[in-house]
Amino acid sequence: MAELPPTTKANRPDARLPKGFRDVTGAEIRAQSRMLQTLAKVFETYGYEPLETSAIEFTEALGKFLPDADRPNAGVFSFQDEDEAWMSLRYDMTAPLARFYAENAQKLPKPYRRYAMGPVWRNEKPGPGRFRQFMQCDADTVGTDNIAADAEACMLMADAIEALGIPRDQFRIRFNNRKILDGLLEVCGISPSDATDALRRLTVLRAMDKYDKFAAEGVTFLLGKGRKDESGDFTKGAELAAPAIESVIGFLEASKSNAPLATITGLLQSNVRAAEGIAELAAMENLCLEAGYTADRITFDPSVVRGLDYYTGPVFEAELTFEVKNDDGQTVRFGSVGGGGRYDDLVARFTGERVPATGFSIGVSRLLAALTALDKQTAKATGPVVVLVMDKDQVPAYQKLTQILRQAGIAAEMYLGTSGMKPQMKYADRRGAPCVIIQGSNERDKGELQIKDLIEGAKAAAGIADNKAWKEARPAQVTVTEADMVEEVRKILARHT
Amino acid sequence: MAELPPTTKANRPDARLPKGFRDVTGAEIRAQSRMLQTLAKVFETYGYEPLETSAIEFTEALGKFLPDADRPNAGVFSFQDEDEAWMSLRYDMTAPLARFYAENAQKLPKPYRRYAMGPVWRNEKPGPGRFRQFMQCDADTVGTDNIAADAEACMLMADAIEALGIPRDQFRIRFNNRKILDGLLEVCGISPSDATDALRRLTVLRAMDKYDKFAAEGVTFLLGKGRKDESGDFTKGAELAAPAIESVIGFLEASKSNAPLATITGLLQSNVRAAEGIAELAAMENLCLEAGYTADRITFDPSVVRGLDYYTGPVFEAELTFEVKNDDGQTVRFGSVGGGGRYDDLVARFTGERVPATGFSIGVSRLLAALTALDKQTAKATGPVVVLVMDKDQVPAYQKLTQILRQAGIAAEMYLGTSGMKPQMKYADRRGAPCVIIQGSNERDKGELQIKDLIEGAKAAAGIADNKAWKEARPAQVTVTEADMVEEVRKILARHT
Repeated sequence: MAELPPTTKANRPDARLPKGFRDVTGAEIRAQSRMLQTLAKVFETYGYEPLETSAIEFTEALGKFLPDADRPNAGVFSFQDEDEAWMSLRYDMTAPLARFYAENAQKLPKPYRRYAMGPVWRNEKPGPGRFRQFMQCDADTVGTDNIAADAEACMLMADAIEALGIPRDQFRIRFNNRKILDGLLEVCGISPSDATDALRRLTVLRAMDKYDKFAAEGVTFLLGKGRKDESGDFTKGAELAAPAIESVIGFLEASKSNAPLATITGLLQSNVRAAEGIAELAAMENLCLEAGYTADRITFDPSVVRGLDYYTGPVFEAELTFEVKNDDGQTVRFGSVGGGGRYDDLVARFTGERVPATGFSIGVSRLLAALTALDKQTAKATGPVVVLVMDKDQVPAYQKLTQILRQAGIAAEMYLGTSGMKPQMKYADRRGAPCVIIQGSNERDKGELQIKDLIEGAKAAAGIADNKAWKEARPAQVTVTEADMVEEVRKILARHT
Repeated sequence: MAELPPTTKANRPDARLPKGFRDVTGAEIRAQSRMLQTLAKVFETYGYEPLETSAIEFTEALGKFLPDADRPNAGVFSFQDEDEAWMSLRYDMTAPLARFYAENAQKLPKPYRRYAMGPVWRNEKPGPGRFRQFMQCDADTVGTDNIAADAEACMLMADAIEALGIPRDQFRIRFNNRKILDGLLEVCGISPSDATDALRRLTVLRAMDKYDKFAAEGVTFLLGKGRKDESGDFTKGAELAAPAIESVIGFLEASKSNAPLATITGLLQSNVRAAEGIAELAAMENLCLEAGYTADRITFDPSVVRGLDYYTGPVFEAELTFEVKNDDGQTVRFGSVGGGGRYDDLVARFTGERVPATGFSIGVSRLLAALTALDKQTAKATGPVVVLVMDKDQVPAYQKLTQILRQAGIAAEMYLGTSGMKPQMKYADRRGAPCVIIQGSNERDKGELQIKDLIEGAKAAAGIADNKAWKEARPAQVTVTEADMVEEVRKILARHT
């Protein structure tokens, strides 16, 4: 800090963060770290190893250079090092995993299971609830195309959610397979990989996404010539032929009626790509059922789509099924708290060799919000006991009392400010103190002290009409010897936790 | 990841990190997180609240703009946002704390105690053991000039180190006061704050630092006209007058003989600044003694200097006193693992108002190295139990066995690769598996399985002469029913942890 220039009123910096960033304080940090510790424990039970890669990577290792571009792609925070090489802050946990795996493949067990928890950064326009730094929590298995790895990812998500205290009837892991959607698109005459078909593919998918809103009739228009709404606005359609439209609608109907695998199978069995996906689904379903994860926890759902450009096989999503009020006051399902799938082409960017991988990401802040909504973060921390300073020349004695409490494992503070009794009580309130320790000269001479239960006191005060009566009653205040302090404070803590 | 361009051999990125960055893996992450959790618990017992500020701040809020400079000062990683404002990655935890406090002063209790644990970034030349991203762990109290806050910081450091399992005779918290060093410099005719005296101040301090090496005689030369060494090289001196040299030597002698406060008091009592520092030291010593922290844990030491340009009052340092071999094979004291002091001018940069503060920083990687040297990280995790896949068509059955182990809280994996028995055993070894589960068709028909204890097995193998004898003996291998699997595995785990 040596070079800090002195500031004058004119050149004082604003005390604020750039837009889209935030500070996280006490209660949220504690709740988040409890949650992440529980998740880590479940991940380790599944044999996943923790990994913390560097926050900074070469931009090209993150794949954030467009071909022929001199500057990194938008979306990442980037800077040049002294040799002018571009570096960036990681924007997810998957790109660094691919780099790490490619770099250390020789040393790693195959397959390699790892989990990662930490911040990622996005150089994007922030919005309400959309931050430019946020926590991610990922678990991936690299180096196997065994479908059991995908089934295991689903079981792990189920076990992790349950370990957080969310009961089985309030969540569901739903899975699908990208190859089925690709097959469906192929049946509609749209190549799942050809770039020239990209817009039409999007139109079909958007139409499918409107099934809840417009039902079969409306979607049929959107898949065909187009649809005019009540206001007269016209939405251009995907111009599919009649049999193709029928296939998509059939798929959607099977999907929404929670059709078993067999129904979908009939619809798409003739497409090679879809058939492969259906075989994988059947294997996953069998693995889950055999291990005791029945459809109430893990279930096939053809409406699961997820990051279309990214996944190559099974995709899965963890949904919380209980209802909450949304920002508009409507009652809605809580919805997705994470998901993932199989991606097989990331490591090849470095090595040229295809390395199969599968994994999922948990939305840390979404899941934390869910636990709060369910009141699962019930360990509501009371603040520390506050030792008041009645006589300034007795600070060492108050410090000693404070240390005695701390050594007994009780969170405690001595008041360190310079104010009198009333502001000290206000400070104790602000800190959420369960009680305060008061020792005036009278008490000290007798080796005693007073303990005032602030939570009981507040309750009692609410029931007592006037100030005088309150003072006489001195509710929730006891006098004990110094030797009994710890025991008495423990009693008060037991009352309030 | 949609925009990832396909790579060819020619444009494949290297799978590596920029210089000075590193990945942290399994055992180190576990050890570090155990250590930080213990520290957090002690901090919370002292009433410190956790705080996680954003990793990115406005560069000017970090004080990393030189006056009249267009670009941020070197040493920080910086980039411009879409409005061309400069942002930087934090390089310590103190500058963000000052920004946070200035921004939220109205809402915070006064004084405000907080701890912070997280990565910081330095855009500096990396070297052996010097990384450009590393963990910091700080605890600070903002908003009080009460010397009890400094005494408390020392007690907290002592309790934190002890909580990590380091016994009292292997560490020492040493404290001093910047005002004493400033007074000493003033006695020598050097202003502690005047920039024109900066070089001479440095010469005096460097000379003082050579006391161990050159003793009083050599340092006397360095403080006066200068010193010629054996090779004939001449080091220019500080050109102090004789009485000033005498004061410094007297201070050093008192310092090295572990003189009590009284000796130093006599030497510098006449200097107002030093006298103030001595009074503060006496108060701190008294507070620590009264609370039971005698000189074997917390002690005055006039040789403690620390970050001279930063601190304004008490300074303190946590030293581990046990001996280790250094890189050259010499036996040395482990030395400092953290320290801090009082700094009173950081928040004023934002508000114009002086806000007193004190705190310390723990060197996370140093302290972790110390715990490793002391073998305090003894919870040596064995890897997961590995369930081998003997018959590929029985994967659901193996998966089920794996889930049974996991649900019993036992870390377990089913082998997910495609290789045969031998590579599967090699995989289990690589994962540090305590045992493997083997179920062939014979066993399955009988509802049984084999459990092979790899650790006992390795021991036994070392004692058996030839391969044939080994095969016949089948050491450390038992056959049990499926229902007894969990119990038997628990027995093996109990043997090895």
